[in-house]
Amino acid sequence: MSEAAETSVITFLSDYGLADEFVGVCHAVIAAICPRVRVIDLTHGIPRQDVRAGALILAGSLRYLPVGVHLAVVDPGVGAERRAVALAAADGRLFVGPDNGLMWPAAQAAGGIVRAVEISRSRWRLEPVSATFHGRDLFAPVAARLACGAPLAEAGEPLEPGELVSLELPSARIDDGRLLAEVLYTDRFGNLQLAASGEHAERLGLRPGAGLELQKESGEIAPARFVRTFAEAQGDELIVYEDAVRRLAVAVNRGSAAARLNIGAGARLVLAPRT
Amino acid sequence: MSEAAETSVITFLSDYGLADEFVGVCHAVIAAICPRVRVIDLTHGIPRQDVRAGALILAGSLRYLPVGVHLAVVDPGVGAERRAVALAAADGRLFVGPDNGLMWPAAQAAGGIVRAVEISRSRWRLEPVSATFHGRDLFAPVAARLACGAPLAEAGEPLEPGELVSLELPSARIDDGRLLAEVLYTDRFGNLQLAASGEHAERLGLRPGAGLELQKESGEIAPARFVRTFAEAQGDELIVYEDAVRRLAVAVNRGSAAARLNIGAGARLVLAPRT
Amino acid sequence: MSEAAETSVITFLSDYGLADEFVGVCHAVIAAICPRVRVIDLTHGIPRQDVRAGALILAGSLRYLPVGVHLAVVDPGVGAERRAVALAAADGRLFVGPDNGLMWPAAQAAGGIVRAVEISRSRWRLEPVSATFHGRDLFAPVAARLACGAPLAEAGEPLEPGELVSLELPSARIDDGRLLAEVLYTDRFGNLQLAASGEHAERLGLRPGAGLELQKESGEIAPARFVRTFAEAQGDELIVYEDAVRRLAVAVNRGSAAARLNIGAGARLVLAPRT
Repeated sequence: MSEAAETSVITFLSDYGLADEFVGVCHAVIAAICPRVRVIDLTHGIPRQDVRAGALILAGSLRYLPVGVHLAVVDPGVGAERRAVALAAADGRLFVGPDNGLMWPAAQAAGGIVRAVEISRSRWRLEPVSATFHGRDLFAPVAARLACGAPLAEAGEPLEPGELVSLELPSARIDDGRLLAEVLYTDRFGNLQLAASGEHAERLGLRPGAGLELQKESGEIAPARFVRTFAEAQGDELIVYEDAVRRLAVAVNRGSAAARLNIGAGARLVLAPRT
Repeated sequence: MSEAAETSVITFLSDYGLADEFVGVCHAVIAAICPRVRVIDLTHGIPRQDVRAGALILAGSLRYLPVGVHLAVVDPGVGAERRAVALAAADGRLFVGPDNGLMWPAAQAAGGIVRAVEISRSRWRLEPVSATFHGRDLFAPVAARLACGAPLAEAGEPLEPGELVSLELPSARIDDGRLLAEVLYTDRFGNLQLAASGEHAERLGLRPGAGLELQKESGEIAPARFVRTFAEAQGDELIVYEDAVRRLAVAVNRGSAAARLNIGAGARLVLAPRT
Repeated sequence: MSEAAETSVITFLSDYGLADEFVGVCHAVIAAICPRVRVIDLTHGIPRQDVRAGALILAGSLRYLPVGVHLAVVDPGVGAERRAVALAAADGRLFVGPDNGLMWPAAQAAGGIVRAVEISRSRWRLEPVSATFHGRDLFAPVAARLACGAPLAEAGEPLEPGELVSLELPSARIDDGRLLAEVLYTDRFGNLQLAASGEHAERLGLRPGAGLELQKESGEIAPARFVRTFAEAQGDELIVYEDAVRRLAVAVNRGSAAARLNIGAGARLVLAPRT
């Protein structure tokens, strides 16, 4: 057993939450198949069935994850006709989950998909396969075998990477000196993560401390300020900042921007420098 | 140290939740006593003091758990006269927790209890034993010693298995072509897990797609449909399906059946095929 | 590699919660740097930015934690001028986190701080360091290197322990036969943990079963009873008991004392034996 093998890692992201035993059972299945693998729970708090939020978190976190097997289950189509897949990316990472775009942006960030396997009828699945818990019966067992060194080709039937479901995360644009961006995700603090990056802020000419106007789709306008950190916020003002994965976010220090603005994922905001 | 010993596993189920440090402290206690054991958190989201829900989850998950030590703490009687026990089942599994029925159905599923030990005054407990946190002071230390290979007989005083508190999960019955079943548990999605199995559905003659009537104790009747998966649900209709542990459940796709029907654990439902 | 090194442990406490990927990413960063270290999540449920609650939990749990690296991140001043530090305590424990008092009471309990290092510009940090996620970019990498055996002195610039921010937890006092104590913390069950110990109860002459009066700052008085365990509570009466870390707490069996009394952390209570 090589040193590399001894430190093999599965990262695990899902919308299962931690209130039920779903995550624990998947851990148990993995431990039974590959006792030496280490499982890192990336998060199980993805909003229920929100494939796009899951894709965003996985892609945004990828550069911090050890090269290994990335198990991801946000699966509104479980039991229906969607494919189940295992993917190899150009940089050596493996991905296991439903073929609904969830792993697509992360796999692109990993250099693109070089091989794909359809695993719905994998010899490694646990029989009988339930209609509703493929995390346990299909995805966890396949991830565990791969983490323990089994070859990808044995996981199922070969599939053309070009046939996989893709998912493009929304992007922002600057128009007439104003930034138009969609809210991608609301975290538990009520911070609104935008589909826009620190580069957009630079192109708007925003400097730390500068005033902004946030315009909602309703036309309502709220004042805000561009800051580098929460500590620069004054009182409970709305702030816009570049977050830890270099995306722009809207927040209220010690409060909730989502509640203040009464918006969430999917909402569109226009950001304009205050003049 | 044998290979088996190197991969010894404790599974851990409780109603401690993850908001406080209770689970973390138990992990620390285990790691200090038996550094090489792997602890798998089955779930800590059992509703507070709900012994029956804990028993249900543990028994329902057991076949997916590696043979090892199963630590379970849902303990409304902590500090009172209830016994604390360590149990050996016929299939080699060990159980550690309060003697309140919590581990009983799982131990039956593991072939029945072949040896039992009263551990309230175990030599392995952490002194001083608190009145309210036996998970840390008693159960975790005993589980850790057992996982590291210490013999069960040294955990405490021998106890006749027949003296243990038993717990029978409610069962369902079919009467005049209608299924009478109790709601065992509501998961975080609001799905209602029934004390009935896929076999009951077969005996009712239900086929995927078939219409049903759900009658509440109040007499109120709601239409539903028997489906194989969530993906087959149409709109926000009530569905009945066989869940991942082969129990029947009532659900609303992307919604909460508990909220829709305004019922929870302990409620009785009558399911009748629609004619 | 020594046996000790193979079982090195990082304990991890934060206010990140588990809904987002923050904790998972820190785990990933640690695993990438020091694959053999074991990370024990003490809790990530510290109320947001509540340094005092974090300090209380860390200090109260310390005697149960294996000697190792204690990573702690409750950091309202992230990105501002607060120092980031790694500390060595007299008993061999190491602490890594912000210099805002969070680790101070625990380090005192560990025999006091014998060496301190400012790590804001540590050579081990991940570049580029984000303005808002020092857990990932600074604290986790430093904790991982230390856990893998790197010397503290290499973590950053030496700092005089006397210059560190201290934090004293509030204490209680007995005045005219009455105990004056502050509510330190409300746990998820609504139990109110007081800044008072079982010793205070002894000095008041309280015995199990004795009646009490609880007086709120508003002057409102509620009857309560001093008991040894929850099981001794009668109905939904207010009880006062010595909790698992030997602190006095106010509770309602199967209910919430915080809701009943409508108070929380920071409130002051007067406890007087009922005559």
